[in-house]
Order: sequence, then structure tokens, then C-alpha cells
Amino acid sequence: MKKEKGGVTRPKGFFASAICCGIKRVNKDLSLIYSQAPAKAAGVFTANKVKGVPLIVSRINLNNGIAQAIIANSGNANCLTGKAGLNDAYIIIKSVARTLSIKKNDVLVASTGVIGKRLPVLNIISGIDKLVSLLSSTGSKDVAKALMTTDTFSKEAAVSFKIGCNTVNIGAVAKGAGMINPNMATMLAFVTTDAAITIAALKKALKESVQATFNCITVDGDMSTNDCVFILANGLAGNKTITTKGRDYELFKKALTSVCYAMAEKIIRDAEGATKFIKVNVKRAKDTNDARKAAYAIATSPLVKTAIYGEDPNWGRIAAAIGRSGADFMPAKLDIYLGGAKVLFKGTPTNINKDLLKKRVFKKKDIEISAVLNRGYGEATILTSDLSKEYVDINAHYMT
Amino acid sequence: MKKEKGGVTRPKGFFASAICCGIKRVNKDLSLIYSQAPAKAAGVFTANKVKGVPLIVSRINLNNGIAQAIIANSGNANCLTGKAGLNDAYIIIKSVARTLSIKKNDVLVASTGVIGKRLPVLNIISGIDKLVSLLSSTGSKDVAKALMTTDTFSKEAAVSFKIGCNTVNIGAVAKGAGMINPNMATMLAFVTTDAAITIAALKKALKESVQATFNCITVDGDMSTNDCVFILANGLAGNKTITTKGRDYELFKKALTSVCYAMAEKIIRDAEGATKFIKVNVKRAKDTNDARKAAYAIATSPLVKTAIYGEDPNWGRIAAAIGRSGADFMPAKLDIYLGGAKVLFKGTPTNINKDLLKKRVFKKKDIEISAVLNRGYGEATILTSDLSKEYVDINAHYMT
Repeated sequence: MKKEKGGVTRPKGFFASAICCGIKRVNKDLSLIYSQAPAKAAGVFTANKVKGVPLIVSRINLNNGIAQAIIANSGNANCLTGKAGLNDAYIIIKSVARTLSIKKNDVLVASTGVIGKRLPVLNIISGIDKLVSLLSSTGSKDVAKALMTTDTFSKEAAVSFKIGCNTVNIGAVAKGAGMINPNMATMLAFVTTDAAITIAALKKALKESVQATFNCITVDGDMSTNDCVFILANGLAGNKTITTKGRDYELFKKALTSVCYAMAEKIIRDAEGATKFIKVNVKRAKDTNDARKAAYAIATSPLVKTAIYGEDPNWGRIAAAIGRSGADFMPAKLDIYLGGAKVLFKGTPTNINKDLLKKRVFKKKDIEISAVLNRGYGEATILTSDLSKEYVDINAHYMT
Repeated sequence: MKKEKGGVTRPKGFFASAICCGIKRVNKDLSLIYSQAPAKAAGVFTANKVKGVPLIVSRINLNNGIAQAIIANSGNANCLTGKAGLNDAYIIIKSVARTLSIKKNDVLVASTGVIGKRLPVLNIISGIDKLVSLLSSTGSKDVAKALMTTDTFSKEAAVSFKIGCNTVNIGAVAKGAGMINPNMATMLAFVTTDAAITIAALKKALKESVQATFNCITVDGDMSTNDCVFILANGLAGNKTITTKGRDYELFKKALTSVCYAMAEKIIRDAEGATKFIKVNVKRAKDTNDARKAAYAIATSPLVKTAIYGEDPNWGRIAAAIGRSGADFMPAKLDIYLGGAKVLFKGTPTNINKDLLKKRVFKKKDIEISAVLNRGYGEATILTSDLSKEYVDINAHYMT
């Protein structure tokens, strides 16, 4: 497997473009990804009960496992917009399908931004001709930029790997920033590949890759209404078709997971107001579920996150977070490590030098927290960011 | 029932004092509450699995339902301090019992502050003579002040009511500020009363009052290791003994709940960095449990809390929080009100004027959010605060 430059237009036969159609005050906000051939397609969606209109529509259009285009806008989520919002999404899909001469149900739609506001449909419709005319094999970068809301940098990744003599490419773009939480897809991410693969294998690989990557990150514990991951596989790599079993499937899943992990890590590194990148490991929990509970409690604790922002090795707050997580353990058996240094051993503080800890561990940008519960063999890792004054600023003034 | 001035020394036969013994850098940090007669006693404790040493010890001392003194310190939680910490608590209890000439197991102990640091036991021991000599019937104010950590004002409340010809008093002191969450007691609160009451009735009334007050507030979703509520009832009011049933019990519970509510409200009004006081109501949920889940998701959502800090009526974030809460409802039936103004009706935005909403509702200090799920008859109210830059500041620099 090789890391490659580029994103969704890296795989063969994919084209992309983006324009500014006035949804956001500045910058590009409408983007299109197009495959020259109808592609196998799959998606995962937010577990939030309140779902954006695009998710409802795209889920229907994914029913047959085929798609050929994704139209996405930032700045407006088209969520809780009633029947009018549903109609808006269908008008956009119809217009994209007509202009590209493809089937309506092969168009996926995604939106991100403010909830409860109608989309400026006319602006969008009148931009579609231009979007289609701009489609290019180097358009990925524009799409990545056009997806941004409070993101500070655009997010792309790509890898290639061999199946027999054929090179298979996987590329992706994503947007993240806030309202990031595990349990289903947690932001917008679009993945393209030229792999030949069955619909069943594509679905399975996407689900497993998302579980191991996007579902292991959290920024603020809030879960978006509009988050989804779409994958399109157009088969132009010409490889022997990948099925749900065997070495080729494993190769594909590994490559897909690596692309998804790269995007997930970028999302956390660019979390709203983040000054730190935090890896929370929980080991020897009763089971995986308990390990996730404990890791998640630490990773979402405002007190842990503000302490790390303040570069203060306040491991008491970590212990308190595990204590309320619901995970089964005995405090008298708990060990905690900060950046590899043992600070708590069997429920009793070690004689670690706090000043040294501050200097060696907490001044760094990347912080690793490990809690060992000594209760069983469950393990989990969650990536998160700190809670800064900038986070508050950004979210206090993200205008509705 | 009448509101009264004062706190824990309002009821007959209670004395209190506080001194500075050097646990905090400045201000009083050690306090004592004493009843001239052995009192019926009860307590509720944090649900955190990691429990401060004082809670372990006090729970044992409450086993017989009798106590006569509470010794409390701020600045150090005596939590995760191993066997040495346990020994420290017992040394303090012994010293208090000897100086007051009361039984060791009639002394309760409470601590609040940093986790994982040994208490300066010698300082505390050498302060106890002075504490006892300072005991006074006007000492409540000093205790309230000595309990403060990041609190900006001290918290006291008292009421009186009649049982027959006898006046019964209930008084309280508390400390709050951060790490406030429902599910068991969520801060330190000490309640005194001169009511004559059975142990069973006292326990029942405390549990029910805490459930309706302290367990309905949240600041940051973090749950402390050291939170507890103690109540002492010394019977000096001379009323006919209250049992678990009848009108007197209801009178007592109502008065106790009103004192606890006053303390709970003060805790939220003084929440770390709070600029707003937020009341979250959820109505017509499937059941009470679902109503609490939804209200709690709204009240702990960083995105909702930062929007309110920014005085932005971003009800989309409220809907998103309910959507991820686990409560059962249909988005197409959801109504949301902000300060009485309907912003979402049956899942569709109303034409409310946002500028007017900002001016009339969001500029105020007290904000009321109501979500109507139209799914059943469950109701819940949770009090919370906004998430401000000051919260981050306070918690980034609360030194370990």
C-alpha cells in the first residue's frame, strides 16, 4: 500500500468541481463529484434521530447499491426544514441528473451547516451547469475546500495498492471541526475508488473501516444531524472483482481503513479551537464495550479537556471520569499513565515529578493518556482534542 | 413555611466555626458543624465509582443513623490517596471526637478540592482546638465561606415551619461551582434541622428531596468523586416525632426540598464561568426517564451551551441534542420553545423573528428552553449554565 497525493479524483474515472453559489458569505460552498461510469455505492449515516433531509434522500437512492454523482453544499444543513426542504433536495437531484445525463436515483446529496434554514435552491440550480462544466480530474482539492465550515484546513487523502497487476486507488475528502462524536459516521466524508468490488463487499468494508476510524473520534460529544460517509467504486482499475472474503478483500479493507484513519486524524487535529491532539487508550477493561465507555468518558470530560488545554497533568479528573463512565473496575486496582509516565499505580499516586511531567509531556502538542483497569482484556482507543477558549468563541458566534 | 436568614446554625442547638489552616493558599478552609445533642443523621453520596476517602469513612459512621459533628475541608479532596489517606481521615475524626468529647463514629468528614494529594493532617489536627473554641450560633456564614473552591459567593439557606405549636427550622450550607452532574448528590451540602424525626423518615425525606433538586442540575456533565449531602436532625424543636407517613412528613419534606432547591439554584447561578441561568424543560416525552434523557442531553451539550453564551437562538443544536439523547420521538412531531416563543412546530421552523428573539429572550440572564416531544406524558426539568470562555479559563488553571 502506498500513500498518494490527491483525494477523490485520484482513482480513475472520477471528476470533481466546486463553485461559490452564495450559501456561505465567502468561499466555495457547492461541490460535485462524478464518476464516468455508474459505481457501486454504500453509505453510513449519523445515529441521530433528527436527520438532515439529504440523508433521508440519499439513503433511498443508495437502496440499489449504485450511484454516479455526489452533490454537496456547506453552510446550510437542510435539516428540520419540513416538506419544503425535502422538495428542495429532490429539485437539486433532478437538476444534477439532467445536466449530467444520469439517472436521478444515482445522485447522492449531502449538506452541512446551519439547521432549520431553507436552502437557496435557485442559486444552487443555476450553479449546476457551471459545476458540470468545471468537472476535472484535479478537482478534489476544490471539493475539499468547498466542504469546509469551521474547518481551518481542507482534508484529503489517497492510497494505492496492487491486486495482481492492477493498481487500485482509493481517495477521500472530508470536513469535520465540531459536533464530532462516535456512533455512526461523524462528519461528511466522500470516498472514491476505482476498485472492482461487489456491493456487499463494499458495504461491509465501509462499515468495518468506519467503526475503526470515524467512530473512534470525538470533539465535543455532540452528534450531528447530517453526518454521513459515502463511498463510490467504479471498477475502472480492472482488477478481479473483490468479494466479501479472501486476501483481496483484506487488502481493500486495510487500504480503506488507512484512508479513513487519515481523515479521522485530520478532523481531530483540526477540531474546533484545538490546541492539543489527544489519544486516550483504555486497557484491561472488562470487555471492549467497557473500554470504550471509559475512554469515551475521559475523551468527552470538559474538566479533562480544559486541564490539557491548561497543560496541567490533572490525572484526578481522568480517574473521576472513568469512575462515572459506567465501566466496571476497582479504584484500588487502577493505573494511569500520562505520555508513558506512571502517575497512579493501584489507586495510589506515584512520586512522579509534576514539573517534569508538565515539561516533558504536557508542553507537547500530542498527548497520550492510558488507563489500565486491570479487570479483563477489553481495549479501546479514542482520539480527541482539548477544550479551549477558542472552541467557545467559535461556537458562541457561529451565526444561525 | 417561611424563608429565614442564616444557614446551618439557624436550627436550635447547632453551632459552627471555620478557620484557615493552610490547605488553600488563602482564606478559610476548615470548618466544623456541631449539634449540642446527638442527632439523627442521613447522607447521600456521589455515584462515581472513584470515591473520596471521606465518603467511605462517613458512610460507615452513618450506619447507626446518628451523628453529632461534621468536619469539612476545602482545597484537597483526600481522594485516591491510598491507605495513608484513609488513616488521615481517621486521625482527624479521632481528634474532633476527643476535643468535643463525643463518640468517634458520630463524626462525619467531608473534603473537596484536588484529587490525589495527601491532606496536611498536622495542620488540621492543630487547628481543631481553635475550631472548637470558635463554635458559635452565628458560625454558619463562616462555614459557607470556608467550603468555597472556585465558587464566587457562599451559599446558605434556611426556612421555618410549624408542627402544632412548635417551630421547626431547617438550614443549609453548600459549595458547588464545577464537576456538577445529576445522579446522586452533586456537590457538598450540609443540612441541619431541629426537627424531631425518625431515622427512616429522615433518610426517605433526604433521598426524595435530593432527587427533585440536586439531581436535576448539571454544569459540565462531570461527576465529582467527593460529593455528598449530610443532614443532621437533633430534635430540639420539641415537635411530635415525624415518621415516614402523614401530614407532618409532607410538611417536613416540602421544607427540606425548598432548602435543597435554593441551594441547587445557587449552585447553578454560581456555576464556573456562568453568564446565564438555563432552565431546560422537556414535556410529553414517552416517560419520565426519556424526558430526563432529552433534558440532560440539551443541558450538557457544549454546542447548545456555547450558543447561549453567544446569545444566539440556535435551536437546531437543541433539536440535534434531543436527537442523540436516546429518547424516543418523531422529529416530525417535535416542538421547541425559547423563552415561551415557538421556534419549531411539528418539525418545521416557525416564522419567528430572530432579531426579536435575540433581544427579548437571549439578552436576558435567565433563559428557558422547552421541548415538547408529543410522544407521551413524561416530564423533566434540568437547571444548567452556559459554557463560557471563563469556564475554560478557570478549569485550565485550577492547579493540581
